[in-house]
Amino acid sequence: MDVFDKIISGEFSSKKVYEDNDVLAILDLSQQTPGHTLVIPKKCVKNMLEIDEETLLKATKVVHMLCKKLKEKLNCDGFNIVNNCNEVAGQTVPHFHIHIIPRYNDDNSKLLFLNNFDKANVSDANNEGLYDLDEILNKINR
Amino acid sequence: MDVFDKIISGEFSSKKVYEDNDVLAILDLSQQTPGHTLVIPKKCVKNMLEIDEETLLKATKVVHMLCKKLKEKLNCDGFNIVNNCNEVAGQTVPHFHIHIIPRYNDDNSKLLFLNNFDKANVSDANNEGLYDLDEILNKINR
Repeated sequence: MDVFDKIISGEFSSKKVYEDNDVLAILDLSQQTPGHTLVIPKKCVKNMLEIDEETLLKATKVVHMLCKKLKEKLNCDGFNIVNNCNEVAGQTVPHFHIHIIPRYNDDNSKLLFLNNFDKANVSDANNEGLYDLDEILNKINR
Repeated sequence: MDVFDKIISGEFSSKKVYEDNDVLAILDLSQQTPGHTLVIPKKCVKNMLEIDEETLLKATKVVHMLCKKLKEKLNCDGFNIVNNCNEVAGQTVPHFHIHIIPRYNDDNSKLLFLNNFDKANVSDANNEGLYDLDEILNKINR
């Protein structure tokens, strides 16, 4: 059982943005920007190579719907939508998930693809604990 | 007419990885890693907020199929799959497209989300001219 299975089963708590029979969407604890959301099929499939088409399309429809909702509720200016497949690509939980990272004109942030990473003195944004997740959730679901 | 419209109409040449009635996939000239592919609906829609569900799902099916094909043909170890929505998120061509970036265990690369970008002395990978695109295309389509 991975951490998403435990969230789906209710053993672990989470900040739910959306849920239906097949798909759960929760706030990412790392909140690369406010509203950073993970869209997770409830069926446990590892990644883009292993997922069946039906499950992938269900998750995609939720991403599509949530982008419109987050735009409206959080007044963001754009999105980075990311799926990482396998550890080499930065996948940390072996359960397919799609990141929706809202972008704001003043966020001073960037999604970058770096070559020669060993020479770069940078690390991935992780804002765990910086934002009040309930406040963000209230904005989305009000 | 954006650059992708001109590629779709044949006015501009491209390295085609896949084509059907609704979707075109081409090698990205920047080749963040070898095999970096763009999946582009032929219908000109700007982004994830404006795309209709049918067009989005057609593009998604092609992404799914191509990941399996690229894994088999290029022997890559994973993928970053990225869609940028609006300029604030790094969208440079105003025509919806999904990046498939193959990842290799030895690529010394990373997809990073940076906060405080003004303080980071890094720039996005751009390997235009570094790789022989025809050689990559031959591997994919052989």
